[in-house]
Amino acid sequence: MKKIGIVGGTGYTGVELLRLLATHPDVEVTVITSRSEAGTPVADMYPNLRGHIDIAFIEPNAELLGACDLVFFATPNGTAMKLVPELLEAGVKVIDLAADFRIKEISVWEQWYGMEHACPNLVAEAVYGLPEINCDAIKGARLVANPGCYPTAATLGFLPLLEANAIETDGLVADCKSGVSGAGRGANAAMLMGEVGESFKAYGVLGHRHLPEIRQNLSEIASEPVGLTFVPHLLPMIRGIHATLYAEAVGETDLQQLFEQRYADEPFVDVLPAGAHPETRSVRGVNHCRIAVHQPQDGDMIVVLSVIDNLVKGAAGQAVQNMNLMLGLDEAAGLNSVALLP
Amino acid sequence: MKKIGIVGGTGYTGVELLRLLATHPDVEVTVITSRSEAGTPVADMYPNLRGHIDIAFIEPNAELLGACDLVFFATPNGTAMKLVPELLEAGVKVIDLAADFRIKEISVWEQWYGMEHACPNLVAEAVYGLPEINCDAIKGARLVANPGCYPTAATLGFLPLLEANAIETDGLVADCKSGVSGAGRGANAAMLMGEVGESFKAYGVLGHRHLPEIRQNLSEIASEPVGLTFVPHLLPMIRGIHATLYAEAVGETDLQQLFEQRYADEPFVDVLPAGAHPETRSVRGVNHCRIAVHQPQDGDMIVVLSVIDNLVKGAAGQAVQNMNLMLGLDEAAGLNSVALLP
Amino acid sequence: MKKIGIVGGTGYTGVELLRLLATHPDVEVTVITSRSEAGTPVADMYPNLRGHIDIAFIEPNAELLGACDLVFFATPNGTAMKLVPELLEAGVKVIDLAADFRIKEISVWEQWYGMEHACPNLVAEAVYGLPEINCDAIKGARLVANPGCYPTAATLGFLPLLEANAIETDGLVADCKSGVSGAGRGANAAMLMGEVGESFKAYGVLGHRHLPEIRQNLSEIASEPVGLTFVPHLLPMIRGIHATLYAEAVGETDLQQLFEQRYADEPFVDVLPAGAHPETRSVRGVNHCRIAVHQPQDGDMIVVLSVIDNLVKGAAGQAVQNMNLMLGLDEAAGLNSVALLP
Amino acid sequence: MKKIGIVGGTGYTGVELLRLLATHPDVEVTVITSRSEAGTPVADMYPNLRGHIDIAFIEPNAELLGACDLVFFATPNGTAMKLVPELLEAGVKVIDLAADFRIKEISVWEQWYGMEHACPNLVAEAVYGLPEINCDAIKGARLVANPGCYPTAATLGFLPLLEANAIETDGLVADCKSGVSGAGRGANAAMLMGEVGESFKAYGVLGHRHLPEIRQNLSEIASEPVGLTFVPHLLPMIRGIHATLYAEAVGETDLQQLFEQRYADEPFVDVLPAGAHPETRSVRGVNHCRIAVHQPQDGDMIVVLSVIDNLVKGAAGQAVQNMNLMLGLDEAAGLNSVALLP
Repeated sequence: MKKIGIVGGTGYTGVELLRLLATHPDVEVTVITSRSEAGTPVADMYPNLRGHIDIAFIEPNAELLGACDLVFFATPNGTAMKLVPELLEAGVKVIDLAADFRIKEISVWEQWYGMEHACPNLVAEAVYGLPEINCDAIKGARLVANPGCYPTAATLGFLPLLEANAIETDGLVADCKSGVSGAGRGANAAMLMGEVGESFKAYGVLGHRHLPEIRQNLSEIASEPVGLTFVPHLLPMIRGIHATLYAEAVGETDLQQLFEQRYADEPFVDVLPAGAHPETRSVRGVNHCRIAVHQPQDGDMIVVLSVIDNLVKGAAGQAVQNMNLMLGLDEAAGLNSVALLP
Repeated sequence: MKKIGIVGGTGYTGVELLRLLATHPDVEVTVITSRSEAGTPVADMYPNLRGHIDIAFIEPNAELLGACDLVFFATPNGTAMKLVPELLEAGVKVIDLAADFRIKEISVWEQWYGMEHACPNLVAEAVYGLPEINCDAIKGARLVANPGCYPTAATLGFLPLLEANAIETDGLVADCKSGVSGAGRGANAAMLMGEVGESFKAYGVLGHRHLPEIRQNLSEIASEPVGLTFVPHLLPMIRGIHATLYAEAVGETDLQQLFEQRYADEPFVDVLPAGAHPETRSVRGVNHCRIAVHQPQDGDMIVVLSVIDNLVKGAAGQAVQNMNLMLGLDEAAGLNSVALLP
Repeated sequence: MKKIGIVGGTGYTGVELLRLLATHPDVEVTVITSRSEAGTPVADMYPNLRGHIDIAFIEPNAELLGACDLVFFATPNGTAMKLVPELLEAGVKVIDLAADFRIKEISVWEQWYGMEHACPNLVAEAVYGLPEINCDAIKGARLVANPGCYPTAATLGFLPLLEANAIETDGLVADCKSGVSGAGRGANAAMLMGEVGESFKAYGVLGHRHLPEIRQNLSEIASEPVGLTFVPHLLPMIRGIHATLYAEAVGETDLQQLFEQRYADEPFVDVLPAGAHPETRSVRGVNHCRIAVHQPQDGDMIVVLSVIDNLVKGAAGQAVQNMNLMLGLDEAAGLNSVALLP
Repeated sequence: MKKIGIVGGTGYTGVELLRLLATHPDVEVTVITSRSEAGTPVADMYPNLRGHIDIAFIEPNAELLGACDLVFFATPNGTAMKLVPELLEAGVKVIDLAADFRIKEISVWEQWYGMEHACPNLVAEAVYGLPEINCDAIKGARLVANPGCYPTAATLGFLPLLEANAIETDGLVADCKSGVSGAGRGANAAMLMGEVGESFKAYGVLGHRHLPEIRQNLSEIASEPVGLTFVPHLLPMIRGIHATLYAEAVGETDLQQLFEQRYADEPFVDVLPAGAHPETRSVRGVNHCRIAVHQPQDGDMIVVLSVIDNLVKGAAGQAVQNMNLMLGLDEAAGLNSVALLP
C-alpha cells in the first residue's frame, strides 16, 4: 500500500479525497494535517467517514509528510507553493489541488491571485493535471497542478473542436454553472442556504480566476491565442458543473464522430449519443465528464454540453486519477463507483 | 370593479393570476372555468387562496364569460384560438397567456406547434403584449398575445442594444435558465423532484418553441433578421428565469447609460448599477425584470444578465399589466408588492 | 402616516419587516439603524426593496428613534433591554422581536440566555405579543415581546385543547421543523447550503431556548405546569415551520368544532377541514397559521399540524399585527397578501 | 459469480439495486425485466449506469429468471405474490422489496393493501428481512420480505429499548420524515418539484401502510401489543429518512451503553456518541443506519433519532444485505462505499 498524506483536509476537497481514498485498493492515508482541527478525529468532523478512516488531524509535520509516497495539498491558494519545495526534495510526489502551479505565466498568476509567487521555477516543472491531454507527462511528474473545476469542464468540451480546427478561435463563449460546494466550506454569509437556495445568479462576469486558466488551456490546444468570454453562475444545488459552450463552426465536421473518436480511449470522458442533454446528476459522486455536442438548426453555431461533479472530476477525483498515473497504478483504481441517481 | 373571467385556471399560471387579482383594487374575478375541476372551490385546490377567493371552478360557459369585461386564457396551446372569436364578438377583451397569437407568420406557428391555426386572421390583429415595446397598441387592443417567459427575459435584455445598433445582429446567444414551474403542473415524470432536484441540464438545444418567438421579437426591433442561438436549461428551483445574453459590440457605447435611459420610464424594468449581478430571488413573486449589462475585460463581447419571475413578468403578472393597460387602469395597479427575499 | 423606526434591520427579520411595511397603508419607516451598515442604502443590501424603500441605514440615534410612534427591535438577544427604557420614557411604543421580554421568570431567562437581565422590571410590564391570546393587552401596551417562531406555531396548536381541558397536560410532544432562515443571516459555516441542503437533522434535543417559552405559554393557558418534550429540526428549505404536536386525549371532544370555534374570529388562524394536512408553502410570505387536528385510528393520541412562515407569523408579520393593535389600526392592515404558491 | 435477476427494474428501487450490484464482487445481474421498457438498454434509461451495465430490459421470462440464483422483485405491491411460487419451485431464492410478504396477519394485509392475497401460505414461510433481528433466519430463507423504509428506521430505533424493557409499550410516537424518492418515479402531479420543493407537510396521519408493519415489528420485539402513533412527513429533498421516536422511560437505564452494546456487532448500525444529532446526509448512498439516543432535561421522555437512506438501508441496500446472507456471502459485500457528503 502506498502511503498518502493530505495537507489541509478540512474542506470539501479534503473530505472528498478521504471518501475516495478510503476505499482505494492500493493506497492508505497515513497523515492528514490541519492547524485548526489538530487532534480532532477525521470522522468526528465528517460522520460519513465513521468506520472508514480512523486517523485524526495533526499539525503540519514535515517528517511525517516526508515519509509519504505522495502528498495532496487541499489548501487555500498560496499555501502549497511555500511547502512543496521541501517535500519534493524529500522525494515525495505532490499534487496541488489549489491554483499555485496552474498558470505558466507568473505575472498573470500574480495579477489574478494577488500575491507574489514563492517558487516560480517549480511552475515551469509542474505538469497541468488534465490526463486527457497530459497523460504521459503526468506519469513522469514529481509535481502536478490539479486543474480547476470550471477549466476541466470547459477544456474537455472545446478540446476535440480545437484540435480538429473545427471552430473559429475567437468569440468563444463558456457559460458555466456550478453547485455551491465549489465555494468551499468557509463561513461565508453569501453562501448560506438562505442566500443561495431557490435562486440563481451569475457572478464574476468582469473577471474570474478560472478565466486565465481556461484561456491558457484552449490557447495551448489551438496553438494560438483564443478569444473567450467566460461567465460563471451559481446553481441552487450542492454538486455539479454544467458548461454550455458556444463556438462558430469552420467548415463541415461530423461532430459526433469527432468527439467519440477523440475520447474513445479515455476512461473518464463519456460522449453521449447525438441529441442528448447530459444531467449533472449523471456524474454525481463519480469522476466522469459526460459530453454532448449539437449544431442547432443547421446553423453555424456549435453548442457543447459538458458536465462533471465539481468535487470529483473537478477536484478530488481528478487528483486521484493523477495520483494513480504518478504512482504507476491503474488509472481508474478506486474510481469505479456508479453515480448516485436519483 | 371590472369583471374578469379566467378560462382554464387550474395550472400554475391560473393560480398566479388568482393570487394577483385577489388583491387588485379595481377588478374582481367573477368566472373561472375548468372542465376537470368544475364544482371544486378554487381555494380547495389552492389553499393559499383560502379567505381570498370564494368562487368555484365551473364548466366553460359562453354566457358568463361574455358578461366579463376581460377574459384571460390560461389554457394549453390551441385552446384559445377556438374560443376567442366568439368572445371578441361579444365585446369582451381577451388576453391569451398561451402561444396561439404570438407568432405572426402562420406557417411558422403551425410548424412549431404542430397544428392548424383556427383563426389566422385574428393573429394579424392580436397585439404582442410586451408593454415595454407595444404600450400604446396594447391600450387599444381587443386581443393581446401575452409573451412567453423566455422571450420576455431575452427580449428585454437585447432591446436597448438592438434599438441603438450597438451590436452585431448575427451570432447572438441566449443562454437561458428556468425554474421548474415553467413546465406547468401536469403529471409528468420528468418533472418529479426526484428527477430534477439537485441536478441541472440543458434541453431542447435542437429546437424550442420560444426560439421563433424570440427571433421574431429581435428581428422586429432590429428591422432585419437576426442570427440567434437559444439554449434553455432547467434549474433545480421553482420560480425564476435568468437569461445570460451574448452579443458582439459594434463601436463604443456607454452601455450603462443606454440601458438606464431606455428603461427610465418603465415601471417594471429595473436597470441595476454597473457591475451588478441580478439574482432571480430579487424578483420572486413580482412583475419586475432586473437587468445588468457588462462588457468583460474590455473585449468585444457584451453580456446582459436579465432576470424575471417566470410566473409573474413571464406570465400572469405581465398579463395583469396588459389588462391594466387595456382597461384604462394604472399600469402598475395590483402589482406593487415586494419580492419575497429570502 | 405613523412614523416607524427599526433598530438592527440588516438580518432576515429586518428585511421582512421592511417588505411588509413598504406597502402598509398607514405607516412609514422613517429610521432604520445598523452599526455595521450605516450609510448603506437599504435597497443596496436588499435589491427586492429597490423602488420601495429609499432610506439608508444610520448609526443608532436616540433622537430620531425618539421621534417615532413605534420602534421595532430586530436585534440580537440582549440588545433591546439596554435601549428600550429610554425609548419608553420618550413616549415611543416598542416591539422587541428578540427574546429579551418573553420569559416572565427572570432567573429562567438568565439561565437560558446566559446573561444578566438589564431591566427586569420591564419584563413584568411587557405584554407577550400573541394576539390570539393577548389581544386586548397588546392594544394597551407600551412594550410588546414578540413571540418566537416555534412558540407561535406550537402554542396556537395546543391552545384550543388546553383551554378546553381536552388533553392530559403531561407527556406533550412538540416535534417541530423549521426552514433555515430561522437561523438568521450571520456567517455561520453550519448553515451553508453545502451543509444543510439535501439533508435533515434534529438539533438542540437536550435543550433549546424556545422550550421555556413554549412551556410558559402552555402552562399559563392550562393554569398548571405542563410536561413538554420539544425537538426542533432543520429543514432543507428557506421559509416555513411545521409543528407536529402530540397529546393524549381526555374524554371525547369534537376536535374539529373546538378548533373552528376557538379561531372563528381570528383573522390569521385558519382551521383546515377535517382530514387535511397543511403545507408550509400555503403560508409562504403571509401572516397566517394554518392548522389541522386529527385523532388517528380512534386512538387516544391527538395530533395537531400547525404551519406558519417563520419570518412572518413567526417574526415580522406578527410584529406588524401587534403594531397595528398598539397603534389603533386595523389588525390586518398591510397583511392581506396571498401566499406565494408554488 | 452468482446470477441475479430483477423483476421490474425501472423505478428508483430498481436503479438503486443496479447501482449497488454493478460493483458487487460476487454477483452479476443477468436478467432484468420490465414490460413497459422491454428492449431499452438499462443505461439508456439511467445514464449513471453507462459503462457499468450493458444489458437491456426484457419482457418477464420465467425460464431466464428460473436460471438465476436469486431474484429481486422491485415491483408494485401485489405483483410478486403472483410470480414468486413458480420461482421458488424452480429453486430460485427470492427477495421481495414490496410489501407482499411483510405482514403476517393476512386480513390485516388485505385491509391495508386493498386486495386479496394470492399465496397466504408463503407469507408464513417468508422471513422478514431485517438482519439486525432475523439474521440467522434470513441465511436459511428461500423467501425474504424486505422491510419498508419507515419500518426500518423506526424499528432499529425502538429495538434496544423494547428488548430491554426500558420504555412503556403504550403511547409510542414515531414522527418520521422522508425524502421524495420514497414516493417512486411514477408520473404523479403531487410529487412534482413545483409541488413539493421548498415546502413541508405531513401526510397519511389517519393511516399509512407502514403503520401495521411497524406495529407488528415492535409488538414482536416487545412480546406484547404496543400502542403507536405514526406520522409520516414529506421532506423537500431526494434521499433520506429521519425518524424521531418518543417513548416514556421505565426505570433508569444507561441508554448510551444499551444502544452501543446492542449494535456492537452489527455492521450497518452506527450508534453515535451521546449528545449527537445524526444528519440524513451522513448515510446518503450507503446502507448504514445512524442512531442517537437522548433523554432531554432528565425527564421521563426518551428521544431516539434514527437516519437511513430510504433507497439503501430502506430498500435496495438492505435487499443486497439480505442477498449476501442468503447466498452465503459476506454480509457487507458490495456495501462498503462511503456516504456522499456534502
